[in-house]
Amino acid sequence: MTTAAVQDISALADFGIEVPSWAYGNSGTRFKVFTTPGVPRTPFEKVADAAEVNRVTGAAPRVSLHIPWDKVDDFSSLASFAADHKVALGAVNSNVFQDDDYKLGSLTNADKRIRAKAVAHHLECIDVMRATGSKTLKLWLPDGTNYAGQDSIRARQDRLAESLQEIYAGLDADHTLLIEYKFFEPFFYHTDIPDWGTSLLHCLALGDQAKVVLDTGHHAPGTNIEFIVAQLIRQNKLGAFDFNSRNYADDDLIVGAADPFQLFRIMHEIVSVGAHLPTSGINFMLDQCHNIEPKIPGQIRSIMNVQEATAKALLVDASALEKAQIDGDILGAHAVLMDAYNTDVRGLLADLRESQGLDRDPVAAFARSGYMERVETDRVGGQQAGWGA
Amino acid sequence: MTTAAVQDISALADFGIEVPSWAYGNSGTRFKVFTTPGVPRTPFEKVADAAEVNRVTGAAPRVSLHIPWDKVDDFSSLASFAADHKVALGAVNSNVFQDDDYKLGSLTNADKRIRAKAVAHHLECIDVMRATGSKTLKLWLPDGTNYAGQDSIRARQDRLAESLQEIYAGLDADHTLLIEYKFFEPFFYHTDIPDWGTSLLHCLALGDQAKVVLDTGHHAPGTNIEFIVAQLIRQNKLGAFDFNSRNYADDDLIVGAADPFQLFRIMHEIVSVGAHLPTSGINFMLDQCHNIEPKIPGQIRSIMNVQEATAKALLVDASALEKAQIDGDILGAHAVLMDAYNTDVRGLLADLRESQGLDRDPVAAFARSGYMERVETDRVGGQQAGWGA
Amino acid sequence: MTTAAVQDISALADFGIEVPSWAYGNSGTRFKVFTTPGVPRTPFEKVADAAEVNRVTGAAPRVSLHIPWDKVDDFSSLASFAADHKVALGAVNSNVFQDDDYKLGSLTNADKRIRAKAVAHHLECIDVMRATGSKTLKLWLPDGTNYAGQDSIRARQDRLAESLQEIYAGLDADHTLLIEYKFFEPFFYHTDIPDWGTSLLHCLALGDQAKVVLDTGHHAPGTNIEFIVAQLIRQNKLGAFDFNSRNYADDDLIVGAADPFQLFRIMHEIVSVGAHLPTSGINFMLDQCHNIEPKIPGQIRSIMNVQEATAKALLVDASALEKAQIDGDILGAHAVLMDAYNTDVRGLLADLRESQGLDRDPVAAFARSGYMERVETDRVGGQQAGWGA
Amino acid sequence: MTTAAVQDISALADFGIEVPSWAYGNSGTRFKVFTTPGVPRTPFEKVADAAEVNRVTGAAPRVSLHIPWDKVDDFSSLASFAADHKVALGAVNSNVFQDDDYKLGSLTNADKRIRAKAVAHHLECIDVMRATGSKTLKLWLPDGTNYAGQDSIRARQDRLAESLQEIYAGLDADHTLLIEYKFFEPFFYHTDIPDWGTSLLHCLALGDQAKVVLDTGHHAPGTNIEFIVAQLIRQNKLGAFDFNSRNYADDDLIVGAADPFQLFRIMHEIVSVGAHLPTSGINFMLDQCHNIEPKIPGQIRSIMNVQEATAKALLVDASALEKAQIDGDILGAHAVLMDAYNTDVRGLLADLRESQGLDRDPVAAFARSGYMERVETDRVGGQQAGWGA
Repeated sequence: MTTAAVQDISALADFGIEVPSWAYGNSGTRFKVFTTPGVPRTPFEKVADAAEVNRVTGAAPRVSLHIPWDKVDDFSSLASFAADHKVALGAVNSNVFQDDDYKLGSLTNADKRIRAKAVAHHLECIDVMRATGSKTLKLWLPDGTNYAGQDSIRARQDRLAESLQEIYAGLDADHTLLIEYKFFEPFFYHTDIPDWGTSLLHCLALGDQAKVVLDTGHHAPGTNIEFIVAQLIRQNKLGAFDFNSRNYADDDLIVGAADPFQLFRIMHEIVSVGAHLPTSGINFMLDQCHNIEPKIPGQIRSIMNVQEATAKALLVDASALEKAQIDGDILGAHAVLMDAYNTDVRGLLADLRESQGLDRDPVAAFARSGYMERVETDRVGGQQAGWGA
Repeated sequence: MTTAAVQDISALADFGIEVPSWAYGNSGTRFKVFTTPGVPRTPFEKVADAAEVNRVTGAAPRVSLHIPWDKVDDFSSLASFAADHKVALGAVNSNVFQDDDYKLGSLTNADKRIRAKAVAHHLECIDVMRATGSKTLKLWLPDGTNYAGQDSIRARQDRLAESLQEIYAGLDADHTLLIEYKFFEPFFYHTDIPDWGTSLLHCLALGDQAKVVLDTGHHAPGTNIEFIVAQLIRQNKLGAFDFNSRNYADDDLIVGAADPFQLFRIMHEIVSVGAHLPTSGINFMLDQCHNIEPKIPGQIRSIMNVQEATAKALLVDASALEKAQIDGDILGAHAVLMDAYNTDVRGLLADLRESQGLDRDPVAAFARSGYMERVETDRVGGQQAGWGA
Repeated sequence: MTTAAVQDISALADFGIEVPSWAYGNSGTRFKVFTTPGVPRTPFEKVADAAEVNRVTGAAPRVSLHIPWDKVDDFSSLASFAADHKVALGAVNSNVFQDDDYKLGSLTNADKRIRAKAVAHHLECIDVMRATGSKTLKLWLPDGTNYAGQDSIRARQDRLAESLQEIYAGLDADHTLLIEYKFFEPFFYHTDIPDWGTSLLHCLALGDQAKVVLDTGHHAPGTNIEFIVAQLIRQNKLGAFDFNSRNYADDDLIVGAADPFQLFRIMHEIVSVGAHLPTSGINFMLDQCHNIEPKIPGQIRSIMNVQEATAKALLVDASALEKAQIDGDILGAHAVLMDAYNTDVRGLLADLRESQGLDRDPVAAFARSGYMERVETDRVGGQQAGWGA
Repeated sequence: MTTAAVQDISALADFGIEVPSWAYGNSGTRFKVFTTPGVPRTPFEKVADAAEVNRVTGAAPRVSLHIPWDKVDDFSSLASFAADHKVALGAVNSNVFQDDDYKLGSLTNADKRIRAKAVAHHLECIDVMRATGSKTLKLWLPDGTNYAGQDSIRARQDRLAESLQEIYAGLDADHTLLIEYKFFEPFFYHTDIPDWGTSLLHCLALGDQAKVVLDTGHHAPGTNIEFIVAQLIRQNKLGAFDFNSRNYADDDLIVGAADPFQLFRIMHEIVSVGAHLPTSGINFMLDQCHNIEPKIPGQIRSIMNVQEATAKALLVDASALEKAQIDGDILGAHAVLMDAYNTDVRGLLADLRESQGLDRDPVAAFARSGYMERVETDRVGGQQAGWGA
């Protein structure tokens, strides 16, 4: 067995993962949303929780917002609050799935008034970006239909293209529009942006400021996701990741929990072209729910899982790999990759944290901190945050 | 092209399909539950809506209840109300997914107290059966886990077997326990009854009063459902169907909307052994949601789709089919089946309805009736029924 | 129930479907290739069989060739033979999967010599096109890997782009290059053109003469194929169909056998924008195997299935559909589509055939013709054609 | 992060994995079988190759045979040859998929003569067992159909049950009949034993000597295989594993190559009930092809992958896991499992090998041995073994 000569994972010191504000609120299935004590009631409390994840991992420097869930009267005060807690506000996520008007679609709706409303919501999100300093607008389009014939697939694409043009026109020059695709849900016959090809076509039509966001849970069974990563990077159109795990649907589990080898293969495609470096401009984000497990520890574990996969990818002996590939040495090339994957990087990562002045074990550090007990006591009364608010 | 010599679908006159009370209430996805005017607020109003489906189709003689959603102070008055509306109360469905106690499982929970509570709920459902005259208890077990290692798969099977024994012991001699399986959801790593094999093993361990219920939406991609139907009938263990359509997950769409040919193949397995006759004891039920389409018309369409598939199955020329099969005439045998499927049976069904004193077109009859407008006016105030109530 | 006022399927008189020469040869699985008497031994005999399909259906005017399987000394004599049999030679299909050199890839191979060889094969195919008068080169790229790390996904895309440029440069001005995608097989970890997005990106990079070919069996489970059809037409990049049926993998069954409703939905997207008309330039082809059923009747059935699906699509009441869609009448719009699908069009098609001077029933006409018995007697000795020859 | 206090993997010293004779012969896809120098031409040469795998790993003590591919005039001399090479002959695998008679089925065929022939083949295999000393007959039933209606699903189950009774009656008292299930292929509409439920039902009908064999590649997408393992063990009906990897279909790749975490979860279910011990009677076998990679090294890697997964499973801190599970500590329980999985066990396994007098690195040991060069030189002429012989 060979091992990488040098185990250098120092690039991870600058590798930040953005966390979603909604991970700290309640979430669930259509069957039940379980609640737990201590869940945030306001965007400020969500940011505080996210800051705790960053405090113990040193790797979660930004928090994504979701509008309207994270609407506040004064976004600059939210940004200051975040800065005080040593995190920044990140991407702004729009929401066109919770208004009764959007039952038959938002940016694709046959009704011009509703399309205009959905466009206006995005322009409002751009205003939030200006207020928070965020440079990224993320658009997951939930539109689709449940029955064959319900609406014209073709007409909806045309309407979508037009709506996107209007949103794109509202961006500032340093803004990026991220367009997310999803295989299915919340509609079950067809989805208006179901795959990376559709997302990319709209981005190409819009221009350089539009890029694709790849949610690891949004693909058909058996899809080779690392292939899509490689393809989008090759087109210079990979704008961001939404990391989570999927076994069946868009299960939104802790990233790396379902298939840690897949996460490693994805990070290998990233690392092999240097796309893990800040200069790549790719935004590595979590997008997941913690339906039953504690939310802050769930986020910490997720951050650590991405770090472990990335560390392993950094350990791949690139020149040995390339040599075996060029030589057509199938098992040899595979073995180079597996050697990195099979390495236990937990100690290396603990060392890295220690060198950064962090606790070697973020999970234990958080448990010891008393934070959870404190918020469980403090956050009594009010309305816990969830997907509806 | 050959056609069946005699187009006799008269067996459909006695073919009743049970409808679910919850189809008339609000439903949706984890993202949004859309509401519409006129939705029932009480079990009585649900039964009234169901009765309307039966009035225009003549084929929906029973209504399944869901406990606690359909809990009333006096079940005998609900049964009388139903009888007055010319329908009967059907299967009683238990619910072990909406109590906070069930976050980690109900009949499989590691906590003995919670298992006892879940068992007690089923005994309460059996009391409801005694009050309503229902003979059928339907148990869909939502239990499962989200993460590998979260609980012991094996221990949960053992606990489940024990819990089921206690429920089974509470049945009257003329009661049937239907055990439903489901591939995934609301948990996403493992499900405690994920497939027909598991459901059947528990039924075999319990005894003759336990049978399997097959929900057409609860299988892995690519599963040949008609094979399972044939196998369960062969074991004399097919207790019931939950009909709906699935494209991706447990999408709960109108049955026959996603794949009408599959529905036909299923009904062909049923008809080819006479299992469509009342004597078979199989309960043909709808289990579906109408998230965005009108609910009563959605149910009417579903009833009609099952009727059309069954009518086509009745038109299969059984002796020609068997001859071609025995002769190894692949295309000939396939053609016999397809000839029945390709026949337009809508006129035959309209004739049958007319012969039963019904309108030839149930959809139009309902639209004309003014029922919807009436309930939209009447049902103002109160809390619309949904999955939570 | 509503029915389309006018049942006009006359457009089908000009709707031709190209048949593959390899459908008439032996085929099978990795486990076994079953043989039957009468299978063609030469390209001439394949063309004769294909001509028989056209004779009885009047709808199969062209035969696709596969090089080297259909290599002959003198292609112009093959073209004359075809013309004498009232069919034309159609698309030329390349083959880069049966040479030992291609074990690790052809156009993507790390070895420059092998890439050049694969390019040269395509240039040879273009020469065949010049000899036969075909205007279409169809490229299915079988390249891929079996193990993570085996080769660089990214480097292979770059090599592929370069190889395709060389092939494209060899086309005449009136030639079209069709690029096919496939989810998996014959490699099982990654495929170099796995999806429509990848195929389209390469076509866009090449130019107007490159278009995508959609094989109905080459998608992940659950993929909404009619969406892809609509999207590719919207981009003016749908070059051709390879029709067949898929239940599990690339099963290559008779088109319409697995899911006739899906075939109808696909043809609805085609018909709704007039893409069924010859002016669209879309090549509607069969690509399927007849592993166990008789091959010529299997092709006849396939042609008829496409015709039936197209006839139903022609019966869709487009204005009623659009009105219901614009009105947001979910069930109404769905019903308009289903009314067309549920119509029995077999009589209409028989009438159309009769009006064309054909037998009303192509299957019976072929059976009666004695052709099969004749070739079973005549084609004795020699080597039956198959995938290897 | 916690780590298991004691890293005891000594149980692996007695953990043997049976290898398939056919892994050493040629294999491929329906598109192409690539050949390589040195491939065995006889069952003796296959056994010699298998013995080499055992020599370097110390963990492959038996070789499965496949009849008729491994038919020899004198099976006792083959058994002696094996013994001389320090391996034993293992399970005997029947083959009912390569005779023209089996086109429409073998044990399920509508033709009584063909069923009798297929039964007789199994009785012949039992005779081979008597000659070789094998105690295990493995039956993978390839039967199925390609088209709806082609044959009666129900009638085929009845015929199958009858055929299996005849085979079972031919077993000696110390023989085991293993019945394998498979989701699809080589037929593509229905398979006669498609899932574990069907296999188990037939085993239950037969008696104690019949058990289920689980091939890790034979499931629908998304199937939780470790659940099935747990369920079959609970029924005392898990007879054997066929290990391999699957990404899409029955891809037959090196076990652990596609999803090493899944392999670990499977071995965790095994280890957690002690089923890895020889007393369990479960036969752990490889069943895979090496289409493009070198075959002996491919087998060595497979053995090592199973060992690594099992070693990790042995490192799971069972009492910590159970405590966290009982406490409902979701993330804690998951973490206990992941701690074992994330451990690098390659050093431990190398130590174990050294303690057994083996080379620490079996791959390197084999490469150094010169065996491959020797057989490439020696095995010239004759017919290389493959699936057809």
